[in-house]
Amino acid sequence: MYAVHQDLFGETDLKFSGELNDNIDVLFLCLGHGESKKFLEQNKIADNIKIIDLANDFRLTLQSEIGKRKFIYGLPELNVEKIKSAQNIANPGCFATAIQLGLLPLAKAGLLNDVYTTGITGSTGAGQSLSTSSHFSWRANNIQAYKTLTHQHLGEIGESLLQLQPGSDIDLSFVPWRGDFTRGIFVSSTLRCDMELSELYPLFENFYTGHPFTHVSRDPIFLKQVVNTNKAVIQLEKAGSKLVVHSAIDNLLKGASGQAVQNMNLLFGLEETAGLILKANYF
Amino acid sequence: MYAVHQDLFGETDLKFSGELNDNIDVLFLCLGHGESKKFLEQNKIADNIKIIDLANDFRLTLQSEIGKRKFIYGLPELNVEKIKSAQNIANPGCFATAIQLGLLPLAKAGLLNDVYTTGITGSTGAGQSLSTSSHFSWRANNIQAYKTLTHQHLGEIGESLLQLQPGSDIDLSFVPWRGDFTRGIFVSSTLRCDMELSELYPLFENFYTGHPFTHVSRDPIFLKQVVNTNKAVIQLEKAGSKLVVHSAIDNLLKGASGQAVQNMNLLFGLEETAGLILKANYF
Amino acid sequence: MYAVHQDLFGETDLKFSGELNDNIDVLFLCLGHGESKKFLEQNKIADNIKIIDLANDFRLTLQSEIGKRKFIYGLPELNVEKIKSAQNIANPGCFATAIQLGLLPLAKAGLLNDVYTTGITGSTGAGQSLSTSSHFSWRANNIQAYKTLTHQHLGEIGESLLQLQPGSDIDLSFVPWRGDFTRGIFVSSTLRCDMELSELYPLFENFYTGHPFTHVSRDPIFLKQVVNTNKAVIQLEKAGSKLVVHSAIDNLLKGASGQAVQNMNLLFGLEETAGLILKANYF
Amino acid sequence: MYAVHQDLFGETDLKFSGELNDNIDVLFLCLGHGESKKFLEQNKIADNIKIIDLANDFRLTLQSEIGKRKFIYGLPELNVEKIKSAQNIANPGCFATAIQLGLLPLAKAGLLNDVYTTGITGSTGAGQSLSTSSHFSWRANNIQAYKTLTHQHLGEIGESLLQLQPGSDIDLSFVPWRGDFTRGIFVSSTLRCDMELSELYPLFENFYTGHPFTHVSRDPIFLKQVVNTNKAVIQLEKAGSKLVVHSAIDNLLKGASGQAVQNMNLLFGLEETAGLILKANYF
Repeated sequence: MYAVHQDLFGETDLKFSGELNDNIDVLFLCLGHGESKKFLEQNKIADNIKIIDLANDFRLTLQSEIGKRKFIYGLPELNVEKIKSAQNIANPGCFATAIQLGLLPLAKAGLLNDVYTTGITGSTGAGQSLSTSSHFSWRANNIQAYKTLTHQHLGEIGESLLQLQPGSDIDLSFVPWRGDFTRGIFVSSTLRCDMELSELYPLFENFYTGHPFTHVSRDPIFLKQVVNTNKAVIQLEKAGSKLVVHSAIDNLLKGASGQAVQNMNLLFGLEETAGLILKANYF
Repeated sequence: MYAVHQDLFGETDLKFSGELNDNIDVLFLCLGHGESKKFLEQNKIADNIKIIDLANDFRLTLQSEIGKRKFIYGLPELNVEKIKSAQNIANPGCFATAIQLGLLPLAKAGLLNDVYTTGITGSTGAGQSLSTSSHFSWRANNIQAYKTLTHQHLGEIGESLLQLQPGSDIDLSFVPWRGDFTRGIFVSSTLRCDMELSELYPLFENFYTGHPFTHVSRDPIFLKQVVNTNKAVIQLEKAGSKLVVHSAIDNLLKGASGQAVQNMNLLFGLEETAGLILKANYF
Repeated sequence: MYAVHQDLFGETDLKFSGELNDNIDVLFLCLGHGESKKFLEQNKIADNIKIIDLANDFRLTLQSEIGKRKFIYGLPELNVEKIKSAQNIANPGCFATAIQLGLLPLAKAGLLNDVYTTGITGSTGAGQSLSTSSHFSWRANNIQAYKTLTHQHLGEIGESLLQLQPGSDIDLSFVPWRGDFTRGIFVSSTLRCDMELSELYPLFENFYTGHPFTHVSRDPIFLKQVVNTNKAVIQLEKAGSKLVVHSAIDNLLKGASGQAVQNMNLLFGLEETAGLILKANYF
Repeated sequence: MYAVHQDLFGETDLKFSGELNDNIDVLFLCLGHGESKKFLEQNKIADNIKIIDLANDFRLTLQSEIGKRKFIYGLPELNVEKIKSAQNIANPGCFATAIQLGLLPLAKAGLLNDVYTTGITGSTGAGQSLSTSSHFSWRANNIQAYKTLTHQHLGEIGESLLQLQPGSDIDLSFVPWRGDFTRGIFVSSTLRCDMELSELYPLFENFYTGHPFTHVSRDPIFLKQVVNTNKAVIQLEKAGSKLVVHSAIDNLLKGASGQAVQNMNLLFGLEETAGLILKANYF
């Protein structure tokens, strides 16, 4: 594995294998979007093996089944009980996780209407493939919008918000930006809200009680509080009739593989934080 | 000057002086906010000397006079004719310039209502003073919101928008972010708008005809197109009923000293671009 | 502690205390250079309490004693047996660690003579204090030499090299650079050497056998292999009669607090890697 | 040209052409290394057209001729008179320029013997092609050595040093590093030298008298003094018998296209600084 993950030099003798082994408890699918479905069509996976898919193939309700397998949307802060009894997990997208964690308590309180969100993501959000916008000479010291109002995570976000605030007419305008850093997502969502912070903070804190990775902060948050961890941090600010919710996660951990491990822990009745107690890169 | 501006090593023998010289045509005030007013109260400046103030002391209409001096808000794309015949200029703020350039054509067309803006700025926006958030170890690879919904430029932005769309009820929610780069401002403003891009682009292009530094792009813009220049670039995107306007400037040039020189050129009937034809740091 | 270490938000309820507690096993001194000696002169520490000093107060042989306490230079790859039976540890400097790990096997083989070393360090090497060279606007995208040929770690490096190659005339010219990143040290040392890589690699590998954090690589190493870990990686290259040894560490871990914990583990007979199995920030 | 050089948006209507036009005064060849020779073999260029080649095809004496064309090594600080009367110029390499400018005055004084040089270069030094080490996720916050002791510029450096210190036995050990920034080269060369700084500084200053871009600094230099300019800055430091020469250039300007324009100015009897008075990116 060292040839691929050179940061593991001296740490492991594990080897990658091209063969499927039936003697496993759980299968993580880390394929490109659309490839998980193909993989499951082409490979027979024993029924007792649990699957955690990191692609977006099974996240939406209407696409969540293949054969006898039914996938549960694996955002523990939304679906923790369903996850504990699930067989298959559709692991959420990175921006989807950051945005939802900032909005779910408001949805549960029926407070969402029009939401305006801007988010910034590191270069690892675009994967390892080489492209103009992943070239260091281009990306260093640069900022650019992309997929304005059309990001592919809007679907899964919408389903989750409607799950908590059914029948409502929530309109989420999302502008994603490419940032000049490697890791992390920082999101600010603005909306009309008449409640005061003194009411809103308890609403958020209550919602996240019992969820070990999501923390509500009354101090200004910043991205590096969460980079290299599975944590999400959330901060609220108000002026006049407008509420702004800031949220931050590490796109590779809480936004991808860390949340996948969190889901595995829940699937198997392990401590939810097992293997995920990590120190943030404050510096 | 080399001791202060070490990048000018080998370029200049100019020396700073602590004394005021009356034999000048123009006086640039580059003091902290609130200091320009004090300076003009404490120092007698000959009436024939034109003043360009880079602080925010005289930007708002109700604060634009001191003694016999009346200051004109120096955004050439808004006030070019007034600037040409002015004696004193209040040079706009950096975020104010970037946001206004994205919204002025819409204001002139009467299209503004609720606007949701997020902007990101480099570390030079905070000046040379040392602070926790200007320490390299903190700021590198980091993002943080600050002055959420309360940024001090909202006043001057509001006056300009109302100048073009009088009597309207424009509500601008602005979330500024600290970016992990040194120079430049990138802004995305989202609002409801029923016009199509095919109508909006000509509206913007017509508005900026004759303004040599502000360019409307139909390709995706990015921050480094403008860093080290006095340019502004603007891009429009639409989905459904929502319009997003992206705009970018260099906070130190179009957002400060470059625009001050542009204003000087206009004050003295020089070519507007004199001294300001600069190559962007694409890399 | 969260007010100081904001990256620990949600992780700990520990509180800092201004009082000394005698009911401890080990005391880490993380004071400025010169302050540890003063602290021990002014405070009575019970004899049974072990001390690990992270400053440079007791690193040199002639300065390694205070009262009845004798400090051992805490580079495990050099002094592991002495450390195991020590009462007090002088934890090595960050550049000193990186440079020594690249040179110790050569010293033991009697191969050192004139050595030419260049090293680059992140901004955390300069601590949290604010200074011109720690300002983000200055340090971003910048490189500068400092303390050329006079770095304060040359003394401790010299003592260690002479410990393994006694009586020799080793002349180490060291040029340190400030890098535009926050964490890590990368060092290249060049010297005359007639041995081939096929002999040198085993010499290094044998020297570091049994030392769990120091790894000799036959592939090109890079800084991010070690950032966020207590590891050191070392690579050798040769052309003609010249040998170049590259070495890299995280200045905050193997170069400071990580090595201090490693020393504590050795002092108390714990597993040497306890608490130090950390994942590198490859991204 | 905007489609390729997006930083020129709004600046130019120039178009690239795939055709050779004989009605030109000078031809800049900006092809890959080895491609210039092929191009001149395959294309007939009128004898009166001057050629400036930015590749390494004609830099070495034994490779400096093709047909009737003889190329002069275009380092103005070394060959200014030859360049003024030349027809064809081989523009120096970027590292070669930075290293030579730090060593030429010493070579002229016959002081060079063994030299140990480390240099760091930005990502633009590797061109626009995509590769693992040019991916932002890899290069951000990273450092790596490459082409240790074998960099392709050693040949041209060696010829220049011998031109000024003929018959000597100069041994240059050069360790290049990849830096985590886009532009610029910083080099430190260490060697034995018995002269004092009080003698060495005048030696350098005299050597560079009349050369408008190369400046000798008695203050600490840093990379951003030269980025975005055609300047070179040089600083000397001594301790004991060792001299360290620091030098810095922008690899894209003094290290490539800027020096090519400087050479064009000399070829055509223009002011040497024409088109090259540029402001450094201090921030």
